[in-house]
Amino acid sequence: MKFLILNGPNLNLLGVREPETYGTTTLADIEHALTERFADVTLTFFQSNHEGALIDRIHQAGSDGVDDNGGVDGIVMNPGGFTHTSVALRDAVASVSIPVVEVHLSNIHAREPFRHKSITAGACAGLISGLGAAGYEMAVRYLIDTYTADARGADE
Amino acid sequence: MKFLILNGPNLNLLGVREPETYGTTTLADIEHALTERFADVTLTFFQSNHEGALIDRIHQAGSDGVDDNGGVDGIVMNPGGFTHTSVALRDAVASVSIPVVEVHLSNIHAREPFRHKSITAGACAGLISGLGAAGYEMAVRYLIDTYTADARGADE
Amino acid sequence: MKFLILNGPNLNLLGVREPETYGTTTLADIEHALTERFADVTLTFFQSNHEGALIDRIHQAGSDGVDDNGGVDGIVMNPGGFTHTSVALRDAVASVSIPVVEVHLSNIHAREPFRHKSITAGACAGLISGLGAAGYEMAVRYLIDTYTADARGADE
Amino acid sequence: MKFLILNGPNLNLLGVREPETYGTTTLADIEHALTERFADVTLTFFQSNHEGALIDRIHQAGSDGVDDNGGVDGIVMNPGGFTHTSVALRDAVASVSIPVVEVHLSNIHAREPFRHKSITAGACAGLISGLGAAGYEMAVRYLIDTYTADARGADE
Amino acid sequence: MKFLILNGPNLNLLGVREPETYGTTTLADIEHALTERFADVTLTFFQSNHEGALIDRIHQAGSDGVDDNGGVDGIVMNPGGFTHTSVALRDAVASVSIPVVEVHLSNIHAREPFRHKSITAGACAGLISGLGAAGYEMAVRYLIDTYTADARGADE
Amino acid sequence: MKFLILNGPNLNLLGVREPETYGTTTLADIEHALTERFADVTLTFFQSNHEGALIDRIHQAGSDGVDDNGGVDGIVMNPGGFTHTSVALRDAVASVSIPVVEVHLSNIHAREPFRHKSITAGACAGLISGLGAAGYEMAVRYLIDTYTADARGADE
Amino acid sequence: MKFLILNGPNLNLLGVREPETYGTTTLADIEHALTERFADVTLTFFQSNHEGALIDRIHQAGSDGVDDNGGVDGIVMNPGGFTHTSVALRDAVASVSIPVVEVHLSNIHAREPFRHKSITAGACAGLISGLGAAGYEMAVRYLIDTYTADARGADE
Amino acid sequence: MKFLILNGPNLNLLGVREPETYGTTTLADIEHALTERFADVTLTFFQSNHEGALIDRIHQAGSDGVDDNGGVDGIVMNPGGFTHTSVALRDAVASVSIPVVEVHLSNIHAREPFRHKSITAGACAGLISGLGAAGYEMAVRYLIDTYTADARGADE
Amino acid sequence: MKFLILNGPNLNLLGVREPETYGTTTLADIEHALTERFADVTLTFFQSNHEGALIDRIHQAGSDGVDDNGGVDGIVMNPGGFTHTSVALRDAVASVSIPVVEVHLSNIHAREPFRHKSITAGACAGLISGLGAAGYEMAVRYLIDTYTADARGADE
Amino acid sequence: MKFLILNGPNLNLLGVREPETYGTTTLADIEHALTERFADVTLTFFQSNHEGALIDRIHQAGSDGVDDNGGVDGIVMNPGGFTHTSVALRDAVASVSIPVVEVHLSNIHAREPFRHKSITAGACAGLISGLGAAGYEMAVRYLIDTYTADARGADE
Amino acid sequence: MKFLILNGPNLNLLGVREPETYGTTTLADIEHALTERFADVTLTFFQSNHEGALIDRIHQAGSDGVDDNGGVDGIVMNPGGFTHTSVALRDAVASVSIPVVEVHLSNIHAREPFRHKSITAGACAGLISGLGAAGYEMAVRYLIDTYTADARGADE
Amino acid sequence: MKFLILNGPNLNLLGVREPETYGTTTLADIEHALTERFADVTLTFFQSNHEGALIDRIHQAGSDGVDDNGGVDGIVMNPGGFTHTSVALRDAVASVSIPVVEVHLSNIHAREPFRHKSITAGACAGLISGLGAAGYEMAVRYLIDTYTADARGADE
Repeated sequence: MKFLILNGPNLNLLGVREPETYGTTTLADIEHALTERFADVTLTFFQSNHEGALIDRIHQAGSDGVDDNGGVDGIVMNPGGFTHTSVALRDAVASVSIPVVEVHLSNIHAREPFRHKSITAGACAGLISGLGAAGYEMAVRYLIDTYTADARGADE
Repeated sequence: MKFLILNGPNLNLLGVREPETYGTTTLADIEHALTERFADVTLTFFQSNHEGALIDRIHQAGSDGVDDNGGVDGIVMNPGGFTHTSVALRDAVASVSIPVVEVHLSNIHAREPFRHKSITAGACAGLISGLGAAGYEMAVRYLIDTYTADARGADE
Repeated sequence: MKFLILNGPNLNLLGVREPETYGTTTLADIEHALTERFADVTLTFFQSNHEGALIDRIHQAGSDGVDDNGGVDGIVMNPGGFTHTSVALRDAVASVSIPVVEVHLSNIHAREPFRHKSITAGACAGLISGLGAAGYEMAVRYLIDTYTADARGADE
Repeated sequence: MKFLILNGPNLNLLGVREPETYGTTTLADIEHALTERFADVTLTFFQSNHEGALIDRIHQAGSDGVDDNGGVDGIVMNPGGFTHTSVALRDAVASVSIPVVEVHLSNIHAREPFRHKSITAGACAGLISGLGAAGYEMAVRYLIDTYTADARGADE
Repeated sequence: MKFLILNGPNLNLLGVREPETYGTTTLADIEHALTERFADVTLTFFQSNHEGALIDRIHQAGSDGVDDNGGVDGIVMNPGGFTHTSVALRDAVASVSIPVVEVHLSNIHAREPFRHKSITAGACAGLISGLGAAGYEMAVRYLIDTYTADARGADE
Repeated sequence: MKFLILNGPNLNLLGVREPETYGTTTLADIEHALTERFADVTLTFFQSNHEGALIDRIHQAGSDGVDDNGGVDGIVMNPGGFTHTSVALRDAVASVSIPVVEVHLSNIHAREPFRHKSITAGACAGLISGLGAAGYEMAVRYLIDTYTADARGADE
Repeated sequence: MKFLILNGPNLNLLGVREPETYGTTTLADIEHALTERFADVTLTFFQSNHEGALIDRIHQAGSDGVDDNGGVDGIVMNPGGFTHTSVALRDAVASVSIPVVEVHLSNIHAREPFRHKSITAGACAGLISGLGAAGYEMAVRYLIDTYTADARGADE
Repeated sequence: MKFLILNGPNLNLLGVREPETYGTTTLADIEHALTERFADVTLTFFQSNHEGALIDRIHQAGSDGVDDNGGVDGIVMNPGGFTHTSVALRDAVASVSIPVVEVHLSNIHAREPFRHKSITAGACAGLISGLGAAGYEMAVRYLIDTYTADARGADE
Repeated sequence: MKFLILNGPNLNLLGVREPETYGTTTLADIEHALTERFADVTLTFFQSNHEGALIDRIHQAGSDGVDDNGGVDGIVMNPGGFTHTSVALRDAVASVSIPVVEVHLSNIHAREPFRHKSITAGACAGLISGLGAAGYEMAVRYLIDTYTADARGADE
Repeated sequence: MKFLILNGPNLNLLGVREPETYGTTTLADIEHALTERFADVTLTFFQSNHEGALIDRIHQAGSDGVDDNGGVDGIVMNPGGFTHTSVALRDAVASVSIPVVEVHLSNIHAREPFRHKSITAGACAGLISGLGAAGYEMAVRYLIDTYTADARGADE
Repeated sequence: MKFLILNGPNLNLLGVREPETYGTTTLADIEHALTERFADVTLTFFQSNHEGALIDRIHQAGSDGVDDNGGVDGIVMNPGGFTHTSVALRDAVASVSIPVVEVHLSNIHAREPFRHKSITAGACAGLISGLGAAGYEMAVRYLIDTYTADARGADE
Repeated sequence: MKFLILNGPNLNLLGVREPETYGTTTLADIEHALTERFADVTLTFFQSNHEGALIDRIHQAGSDGVDDNGGVDGIVMNPGGFTHTSVALRDAVASVSIPVVEVHLSNIHAREPFRHKSITAGACAGLISGLGAAGYEMAVRYLIDTYTADARGADE
């Protein structure tokens, strides 16, 4: 199994700047920890501040039968600020048949009102928000379980 | 460590009725699986269709130093339909100092517009939505890690 | 055939207080008249000011094959003030497979703007509003006919 | 007693087209059934796709003392799509002193959001929605009872 | 093949008045040009300032198997000002099974805000706006192709 | 005459994936068909998932007097998801003096509410929506006619 | 000079019904008084409950050079309930070059909120509201003065 | 009979500045013309850019039995920009029992959207808008007639 | 004289938890102080996190002639989070004829926007917000004075 | 201790006009009663219909150390109609460090919707609304207690 | 060259009160610094908490040819809280032909949502916000350059 | 000191196209003038139509201690159309600790309503809008002064 960990705008700065506020955990640290934790699956990482590059990468990820095109079995996506504005990114998620889980490090419902709505989440399997770096790990495990069990529920 | 798994209105019907649509996993099944999975912590379960009963139970849960009052170290809460309407439930969560994680079986952002906003999530540590019964398990593990690690991230 | 007549908050005061305004017909009078009118079916009555108690009762009503659980063949429901605010009550109606008809004594479209929308009606078979106590009778007859004829239309 | 059954735009197509969806009950069938059911009152039928023709007919209906002008004792009105847009039709209802009951075959609260509000209902005695052709029958009976009893309730 | 070219309120004045602003092309000119261009199909023309007359004509047009009732194989419709307000007209379009293409001479998205939304377009096959009289011609060709090819696409 | 056919995000996937839903017509097929149909004009094709790349290309297209800079005589643009969100793309269209026609394969007014408004269309000559691949052909023909006739109308 | 006094839906009932509320002044009385008052100009009267008939009549009125077509030098219009909903009527006013003055008997800003906005007034020369039958007289005098003086002001 | 002609902010500049746009009619000209026209009544004039001064003057005007306090029999008021924002001015109008007619030189419904609503008009007898300086004259005549006839109508 | 002091959700936690933030004054302290202060009247106290229990208690309180039913002469009510959401509670207040004064410890207008509106206050005599525990005392005194004086004012 | 009782627009008319509606209690009566009641503190009174004069007076009041500048220890303010519109008044309150209590004679939540929100209250210590002239007295006592006790609560 | 520096409500308190928060720079300091900096032009200063006084002063400033009337060549205006509410002030700016630059010491887009919109800025040449006292200096220099260069740009 | 002058979408076309409308000042001219004016600081220029490229460049700019990474001491940013839509760009500004000043050539408050709000400005130090190319110069000077003086004010 192969999964893509996709991070959107400004997440490259995580832990690099203002460590007194955001801690010193970098995106590289998160990626390293995920690789260690999930040694039995292949994780690919991609971060970009370019909406188009994220869409391109989702398309590649969705070409699942053709390995060297970047095809994977699922995506963990933190769209950053595009979460609240990008119909194009939502459409990209909807255009691929592999499962996508949206992750946010912070709790978007506890921040400014314009962050309370997610345009992209409606096209994803689900959303994990506010649980920090652990959210990525949960999402990867969910994707693994998707292929090994029939665990998804239905009612609210 | 002790945690409360709190379920709101209509979740008692999970898996009991319309199994062709929602599957046959009942709330009892979910609770049983959680108990098995997390044998090393104490899980308490409570479901009610009464908003007031849920608030009462959160208050008990928050009296953390006094065991026989129902005090616990954290709450996994699926507020059902109260998610979108209850300021009182949000205030109850805000009034206790233990961490609370909101869980939804379905992806609320992919349903009717009136389910896209969560009033209660703003007072919680975070939100897991759309990942089925696995969401409860993720939330419990997050709570355990809260007490054993420094895993919470910060930036969006 | 058995039907539940379910009344929500403040309807217990009907006809008891301010008779110069609302007349002297009490909820008991309405219930009595319904029992007389529909001698050939079993009518059960339940009124509560508690949202949770109404949800509980709807769940019981929906357990239709098991008589002593309170199961019935249909519900006539006047949700009172919950009409305009309760997603949980709407979900309760949606969770049972028996038909539910919403009834309001007054014409909610002729009152304050916040009473013009009904959150619960969307999950019901239909709505009768403004026709007084006669609305209950119409709703019961509709439910009876549901089981004896194929009378429901379709287009607006 | 004489009553007018008034149907608005597109209701002339009822049961004629797309019978696999809407059934084969036509507006003529509904009118015929009503005539049979209420043999002891005089029912007049009028359908138009013209807002102005509906208003004209309501005015005639309201000239209640003068028989050959089309005067009646009450109106059952299904305004179709005008329900959600016509202040002029609402004003016509308000301008006559005979009771008017609004009827919809489908449950307007369970359809597109722009059908959830009724502009016309605020000027009517009440509203019956979602109960199919039975709604017309209920409305006629309500009008009959208006003249033979004191059955209208008051509180929500 | 037979098609109806349906024009709504105020389009009868096209080219007649204020020629310095709107040019001297009249609705008759447009109709004449269409007849010449599409000599191999039968085009019928109807213009009315009456919403009801437009609905009546759509109904006739939809009675497609019965020629002398006005039945046609498709409609090109410019609803004029009704575009932004008429649910009844939208319902009329939805009630017939032949394809309907909405046309506007001007670009409604470049005019006053209240013209930016089209209530009727949601029930049509599609919309052509701002391309002048050429829009009618495009719409007719589209309808012809609908019956001779499989040309309709799907994704946005 | 030279025209640019500009396609925005996710349109590269057209016909490639989910053929059971969207058919097997690819963007290359559409482009090939357009080239064949309009043998007497030069068509250039450009697709990108990058908003900035689309803006860059519109700027090139607008440098109409300088051939090797990519200058053309008109643009057919399907902005995909950017339709509903991009002021920058609208400004790019407004900044060039050649005519631009917006095209959508599906009927945006018949989809989710957030697709009912077009931010970009206000700066275009007009909009064709819901007529499938034929929309591109109509738009090209309109552009050709713009240079050979005086066909644009004015009133709604 | 010739002027048209145009009255919309339900104004035919003025003074006829509910005299205890609206007084006994009928529309005929108003028309008679206007004719007497303005003996030196020709006043034509038209009332209809049909939006289309009002539009047709405005078109006729606008054909000002051709007397027997109904052409006049100005219009006094009370659009009744269409005031708040009709873009088509607004467009009709905008399509004629003669001045149109909108009149309301009651003060629309002191009634229900949905009557506070006028869609039609934006295309008229101005609005007189709440001054009763005197409003018609003022409007006629304004129209007369338009042709005999240069009396229109400008700033708010 | 005595009436107050009350003008609000910026109306002192009328005709003084930008005569090429607004003409050369000054507020003094308007006041002079009114005095000449209505020689048989006493007109008092007051203009201020101060909301408080306007309120003070309305209060004086309302002390109708006491002449030397500035009491009058009615007010013609052009509140200028306060029309759209001042609840205090509306309350001042509501606090006096003499009739007040609101006048605007321009048609506020044909200007920017924030000028389409009038907060003050709801407390006035009525509104005259867009008829230039003639509006003041109409309003004075209306006030005179108020005391000499029973001319106010009622229905819309 | 007897009065009920009614407290809604989460007010039971007052002063118990987070004393460093909210002080150490408990609800019991407030109740004790009120009892001491108003020794000459009978104060009854009731707190519940259950909306239904609050409604039940208001009904009892309103049965004013029958002492042992819980009838009182007035209510001081702090509805907590229900303030902003509960139509049912508003209806309960409206259904009793004794005066009800709404009290909030904090200034709801200085908190999150969703706390700025009170649904319940519209049915109460008045509102005291932001004055801490003193608000309860003020409200009790107001109720006492209601029965001993004619102290209520009227204008804003 | 010295306090300022500040009254805004139209409150000078209290009890003077329309005594049959508002009673005969004048603002002078209220001020006199307050002076008598609070003989041990110095009360200063100021009423103005000028927003600027109210702001000026608040500034003076805030210069608390310098007596002859009008400095006081607290303000009781009834902003009248400015309550709902004045950001400037809110800023004035926020700019002084002495406590300000907002008072309304009537219950603003039971009046027109535009009176339900208070812009000024967010900068005050709290709000008393609907309790008549008693509200002023409560507010003065609250201010006195502010300086003699630690009585302010915190939670909602 | 002469310019007016106009400051609105509460700016007189700048630096006087709460120096620990806002610093000790007073409005007099700012005015003094400006006078020193721009020794070669004449600066006039005016501050008022009265909206009407600000309008009066703008009118004077606009009488540019008549020196002793207060006429100037441009205005730097900080409208304080009137920025967000005053149509009258906007109209005053629009009524004078000299350039006006709006200045805010703080960044209004980073404060409460009701401060994000400026009603007055739309009538000004431009806006400087958030750059502290330097904003006044920039605005004066811009006005000077307006008369000595052709420096104004155009596109966004 | 080093500063970055960052320009967003479509600003590369400034002065190049439509010189009759926008003048002939190009972006290069502006940049050249800035370089000349501020000879004592280092100005770097970057323009892109790509949102991602702008974000990347802001990140580089923020790496202030490391020269060859593009680090600078402040940014002057004209985000063009992204101003009104980009949360990602706002987050980029918020993620760097150097001051950023937003500049617009035109007055965004005097253009279409969708340009009246700035999403990005809330994260900047301030905003200069409508003052043409001079705005850039003001912003650079402000940044210089930030490092050489303590000039920033605070109150509105």
